[in-house]
Amino acid sequence: MSKEPASDATIRGSVLVGATDVTTAETFRAADPATGAALEPAFASAGAEEVAAACALAEAAFPSFSETDPEARAGFLEAVAARIADLGETLIARATAETGLPRARLEGERARTVGQLRMFAALVRSGSWVQATIDPAQHKRQPLPRPDLRRRHVALGPVAVFGASNFPLAFSVAGGDTASALAAGCPVVVKGHPAHPGTGELVARAVRGAAADCALHPGVFSYLPGPSNALGAALVADPRIKAVGFTGSRGGGLALMRVAAGRAEPIPVYAEMSAVNPVLLLPAALRDRGAALAAGFVQSLTLGAGQFCTNPGLLIGIAGPELDAFAAAAGAAIRASAPHTMLTADIRARFEDAVAAMAERPGVTVAARGAAAGPGGAPAALLRTQASRVLADPTLAEEMFGPAAILVAAADIAEVARVVESLGGQLTATLQLDPADEPLAAGLVPLLARKAGRILANGWPTGVEVAPAMVHGGPFPATSDGRSTSVGTLAIERFLRPVCYQDLPAALLPPPLRPDNPWHLVRRIDGALEPQPGG
Amino acid sequence: MSKEPASDATIRGSVLVGATDVTTAETFRAADPATGAALEPAFASAGAEEVAAACALAEAAFPSFSETDPEARAGFLEAVAARIADLGETLIARATAETGLPRARLEGERARTVGQLRMFAALVRSGSWVQATIDPAQHKRQPLPRPDLRRRHVALGPVAVFGASNFPLAFSVAGGDTASALAAGCPVVVKGHPAHPGTGELVARAVRGAAADCALHPGVFSYLPGPSNALGAALVADPRIKAVGFTGSRGGGLALMRVAAGRAEPIPVYAEMSAVNPVLLLPAALRDRGAALAAGFVQSLTLGAGQFCTNPGLLIGIAGPELDAFAAAAGAAIRASAPHTMLTADIRARFEDAVAAMAERPGVTVAARGAAAGPGGAPAALLRTQASRVLADPTLAEEMFGPAAILVAAADIAEVARVVESLGGQLTATLQLDPADEPLAAGLVPLLARKAGRILANGWPTGVEVAPAMVHGGPFPATSDGRSTSVGTLAIERFLRPVCYQDLPAALLPPPLRPDNPWHLVRRIDGALEPQPGG
Repeated sequence: MSKEPASDATIRGSVLVGATDVTTAETFRAADPATGAALEPAFASAGAEEVAAACALAEAAFPSFSETDPEARAGFLEAVAARIADLGETLIARATAETGLPRARLEGERARTVGQLRMFAALVRSGSWVQATIDPAQHKRQPLPRPDLRRRHVALGPVAVFGASNFPLAFSVAGGDTASALAAGCPVVVKGHPAHPGTGELVARAVRGAAADCALHPGVFSYLPGPSNALGAALVADPRIKAVGFTGSRGGGLALMRVAAGRAEPIPVYAEMSAVNPVLLLPAALRDRGAALAAGFVQSLTLGAGQFCTNPGLLIGIAGPELDAFAAAAGAAIRASAPHTMLTADIRARFEDAVAAMAERPGVTVAARGAAAGPGGAPAALLRTQASRVLADPTLAEEMFGPAAILVAAADIAEVARVVESLGGQLTATLQLDPADEPLAAGLVPLLARKAGRILANGWPTGVEVAPAMVHGGPFPATSDGRSTSVGTLAIERFLRPVCYQDLPAALLPPPLRPDNPWHLVRRIDGALEPQPGG
Repeated sequence: MSKEPASDATIRGSVLVGATDVTTAETFRAADPATGAALEPAFASAGAEEVAAACALAEAAFPSFSETDPEARAGFLEAVAARIADLGETLIARATAETGLPRARLEGERARTVGQLRMFAALVRSGSWVQATIDPAQHKRQPLPRPDLRRRHVALGPVAVFGASNFPLAFSVAGGDTASALAAGCPVVVKGHPAHPGTGELVARAVRGAAADCALHPGVFSYLPGPSNALGAALVADPRIKAVGFTGSRGGGLALMRVAAGRAEPIPVYAEMSAVNPVLLLPAALRDRGAALAAGFVQSLTLGAGQFCTNPGLLIGIAGPELDAFAAAAGAAIRASAPHTMLTADIRARFEDAVAAMAERPGVTVAARGAAAGPGGAPAALLRTQASRVLADPTLAEEMFGPAAILVAAADIAEVARVVESLGGQLTATLQLDPADEPLAAGLVPLLARKAGRILANGWPTGVEVAPAMVHGGPFPATSDGRSTSVGTLAIERFLRPVCYQDLPAALLPPPLRPDNPWHLVRRIDGALEPQPGG
């Protein structure tokens, strides 16, 4: 063990336990996704000892960090954002080497990462997340007086965050889960994704540096990289962890849910897992602008090699010449599409396996395949089947993670609805419609609202706006907990719980509930917001 | 099977599957808690067939009921309240016979039940639960335009509610869980508690009648009485059920959590289970008003035969003559207390077993016992031990459901804090303090906030106000989900999930998100509430 300056922006291959760099006997390396060649340096693999040390520090940090005032906590989030931005080319170069993602995508993702940290800073300053609610005493009420009741939301406790491979910045070390957990006042222990350990370490050093800048307890953040599933399981099993944020495969998410449910104290898991994001091609839209829809679809499908949880993996339309024309146009675009390098050799192998397995199912045909790709590249795929097949075998609607989709031909609009009804929970559902389709769509929207967290019209589900009204979530198995979103300001509520104070002397109340309102919050007092917001 | 008029207020011993009365081959009877004598009539035990039928109906009712407008849904809740009130003496007489609770308590509980239904009606009308949030499109934003995003909260789906034995009205068939689930727009299937089947059926008929009054789909409510654990497990396992509300024992709650986590689609369980509700006797308060505290404590402890989840079961003070005086005064009050009849012979037997087992632990003494009671009655008990014993054996802090508490003598305030730190999650924690104790209390309040859902000063935890700022919840194992409350307006959030609509034509938006705002909601538009509430 050795102490390193918190401002360090060099990749050292360390585990970061609070302010301390730790090296371990076991190491692993990142790989160039295009060639499979190992990248320098070697990275320490965190193990049980580092999990325990990080969780102990997180628990020690919790009392002070969870009670930071809005200005201090927002300042920390902004310091994290500034330090990530300051990493500049160092971060982009390493992320490019580790993920194979194009520069423009990584720069966009960095902007999003920094932007959402600042969005949460603004949210923390607004104080709306406290949900301060005061029911003053009614001493003369009959038959019993009413006590003075004051409620606020407080942080749950230390949170485990699992970095995702497909968003090495925006859903990884300082991504949406970390930003919302820190905003809630929860210390964070990150299990770093082994596909981008250098990117992860640079960002982790930025977070750690910001904690030092702000003189916070160093346990507010730790970073545990490593390739083993046992590491993640040990982290979720640690009794000091009180909630989990995860983005990844359904198998990985289900495994963590089982660990969390089996603890002596079960804890919430927010796992964002898998979806096929159905797109409904309604008749008038298909007739009037099928070619444009095909172009838009293939662009969305192949974006970032299809490595988005919101990738449009299932299209449904009514069989006929218009659907055939759409398939032909989409097929041509797919054959012309350039293969992108996938994130890891493992992801590419699983993609090829999934497409091959789907193509062999009875009633499934391959409508189009992209050009053969070099090492690491994944040719896009469009498969085709009948609605009756999907209704008979729901596994035809399972995700093929990557640039592949299945086009489902239904007999009529009622069968379209039956296919939607047969699907599991989804992150998104999209309607492609013209005004003439609105009567049909009106019957489908309520059904889609029961199946998905977000319903789009005439767009494509890739591209998730970071905004107060966004929902990036959905019923199981899209996520483990359909009551939540992992993008947008509402994501903070995953890491909060309510506490009520009854008849406490003013001096013992926490600041947001004190009579003098030192945080200048808008509070709900006897049912009405005071002071009136914006007033 | 036979159809009965929905306005019927007669106990027939039926299972109520939507609008249909069902009789079954297996039956059970209620018992007089004082004598154990069986009460008439026999009640049909619901089984797997009734579970399936009720859940199918609930699913069928969901699309229409979840989209009722605020006026229709609030009207239904008010109709339920009116029909329960209209049951008058019939309800009180039957509840008295089945529970042994005093008339004043049952009348108070009925007022609370009716009151909370009306509170949720007012909440539904306010529309605040929709959390309508609109981020308008920014067509010219660079580098990408922002879509139009509109978010609302919608009902989760059919909810299973488990009636509790200790609140035959307020936490049973039409209690807080049912009221908040219906307010959220979720159809409810109640598993009726077998200790008060007649009371349950009367209330169930009131709910069913109200659904008919309001011309709602009859699947909005079903009532499944029965004595078997298998019935409850089958209900939670039914794939059409999307959430569970439960109040009862830790064993029962944990069993339902396991069933819910083991489903193909795991669902949230809101189980309110067990707590000892620690009371901290701070030095100045103990010195200045120990006798009054002892009287208040014993009154709270013995209220309703101690059959409250908020019963004060653990007191902690600093050893010395003041604590001895408190124990003597409390002991005298306990010896003078009249034994109350407990709810069931089973509860009484478990209470006696728990007190006897606790009294036999090393280092535990019986400070006082109430007078020997007739059949069904439970003499109150005060046990005593040292803080060091509790720290060495956390099971000394486990609940003895009924009028029993353990007084823990600590060496100093630091040891008081260590005992609190050692406790599991609690519904409540209470400070008895004088102004001179405030410096000591200041160090304890943040610790108590991590352990409990509600913190009281100079009161007693029994008596839970139904109000917006109330939290009746707390970290595990007080409840299965410390992010929630089962009392107060916030309870509705347990049964809601967010849905986002992106770029939908106005005609396809649900009413709360339409440009013309037909429900006249206060909505958050581009970050600001509009129209300003109260303006």
